[in-house]
Amino acid sequence: MKLTILGCYSATPRTDTNPTSQVLEINNHMFLIDCGEGTQVELRRNKIKFARIKHIFISHLHGDHFFGLVGLISTFRLLTRETELHIYCPKGLKEVITLQMKLADSWTNYQLIFHELTSTESELIFEDDKVQVFTIPLDHRVYTNGFLFKEKAGDRHLDMDAVLNANINVAYYRKLKQGYDVVNEDGVLIDNNKVTTDPNPPKSYAFCSDTAYNEAIIPIIKGVDVLYHESTFLDQHASLAPKTKHSTAKEAATIAKKAKVKTLVLGHFSTRYDNLNDFKSEAQTVFESVELADDGKTFNFD
Amino acid sequence: MKLTILGCYSATPRTDTNPTSQVLEINNHMFLIDCGEGTQVELRRNKIKFARIKHIFISHLHGDHFFGLVGLISTFRLLTRETELHIYCPKGLKEVITLQMKLADSWTNYQLIFHELTSTESELIFEDDKVQVFTIPLDHRVYTNGFLFKEKAGDRHLDMDAVLNANINVAYYRKLKQGYDVVNEDGVLIDNNKVTTDPNPPKSYAFCSDTAYNEAIIPIIKGVDVLYHESTFLDQHASLAPKTKHSTAKEAATIAKKAKVKTLVLGHFSTRYDNLNDFKSEAQTVFESVELADDGKTFNFD
Repeated sequence: MKLTILGCYSATPRTDTNPTSQVLEINNHMFLIDCGEGTQVELRRNKIKFARIKHIFISHLHGDHFFGLVGLISTFRLLTRETELHIYCPKGLKEVITLQMKLADSWTNYQLIFHELTSTESELIFEDDKVQVFTIPLDHRVYTNGFLFKEKAGDRHLDMDAVLNANINVAYYRKLKQGYDVVNEDGVLIDNNKVTTDPNPPKSYAFCSDTAYNEAIIPIIKGVDVLYHESTFLDQHASLAPKTKHSTAKEAATIAKKAKVKTLVLGHFSTRYDNLNDFKSEAQTVFESVELADDGKTFNFD
Repeated sequence: MKLTILGCYSATPRTDTNPTSQVLEINNHMFLIDCGEGTQVELRRNKIKFARIKHIFISHLHGDHFFGLVGLISTFRLLTRETELHIYCPKGLKEVITLQMKLADSWTNYQLIFHELTSTESELIFEDDKVQVFTIPLDHRVYTNGFLFKEKAGDRHLDMDAVLNANINVAYYRKLKQGYDVVNEDGVLIDNNKVTTDPNPPKSYAFCSDTAYNEAIIPIIKGVDVLYHESTFLDQHASLAPKTKHSTAKEAATIAKKAKVKTLVLGHFSTRYDNLNDFKSEAQTVFESVELADDGKTFNFD
């Protein structure tokens, strides 16, 4: 599981900082999460192949989280993409995009599929044989969802020495990986646990931005490997957090602690601060395992 | 008159090139022309003060000419702008922008005034005591206008030695600047030409992008000081120009020659070419005074 931060600053793009966008690589999927202005250029800068992006998740319709989407869709068209593209987003975005395609008389030659969200309960919005994605309803000024990405349990690993010793026909290997006991060439039932080892533990990642401090998300994100939680403010501006429905670094850390996550990544920093290390030190007064996002930074969680 | 190129490449933004946007400084106005994705960052990079931009001209509704506008409008709001902002654009853009403001529940605290254009004849769309702006109907795949910026003739300059010698009361200086003959302290009528010199010749700038080769614009842009004309293609791809309704460097030069402009600036280069000098050399087989636009380049035409 690998996370590439394309942008992790709030509000307006600047020459040296980008609004929210990140790429989560999990079980061979490449999920794009949020798409502020300039995201397509940051994808290029980070050498992420456009063709690998098939699913885009948009948290909410404030500009710093989606103004780059229409340009990315348009660039995919100009590059003659054929693969379908799925957009998971609040209701309304489809109208914004299609209106602009209509005015430009420029329709995509690939299938563009919007999954517009309106529920205020957590729901499963994507599933295949390897990964599930759930929404995490957040508390912000407009309708907002975070997203929880969960690997499914993988296959058990064959202990090949033990398998060969047990004289099991190759036709049963798939059953073994799936956890079944099988009968060997001599007609003896072999206990699965004797010839296989546990699968890699499934990874999970929760993206929570933008949101006020909100304990309602704790049961949804309980025990995730990595929580990306917004921390727009430091303690000195804590009074602004509830007013603007954002969080402080300490609030993000409190959520991480209560949800017993393994690692907290902080992001969505207000551009008023020069020293990001203050976010880390304030959060660490509450929760130890804290990382700071930064534009262009890659985290490897394997 | 000063022109700053923020972006001069066609189609998609890349790490080292930007889509169309430029700033024309003329007679103390700062006009923003087109606004591709990333324009607000390029304005910052080129240290152009946001507050000085009061009029934005959008040629047409292909993304590489306007996808940066909604973000710029939003950033102005976040920076608590109060000055009104005028947008001159094809019909439809107001709906695109207001729909996004509605979904974000984020309305500007400054007045945002759209002047939506539908005419296919050249028309006067802005005028004050110093400058006029006219549309230049272009021939592209969607409704498109270029823009002609014309300084009005300025005041005559006082020849102060002559004025003092002629014994003219200071109360008449303004009349002198306006070209009137005036009566001096001795009751004698003074010939204006004896005590003033000609005003600076008024400058003019024509922006023509995107367009197929189109001789219909020649009467409108006749004799301008500077013509910015798109040249998406080199001769080797000349067959693509009419199909896509773009121009080659030679076609841009032919328009410049027939319209007897002083200087031609080429831009809107296809990103398929590595060497922009070929645009200049091909154009110069037709018309001598050719400049190449480039992102971040400033032209001083005084």
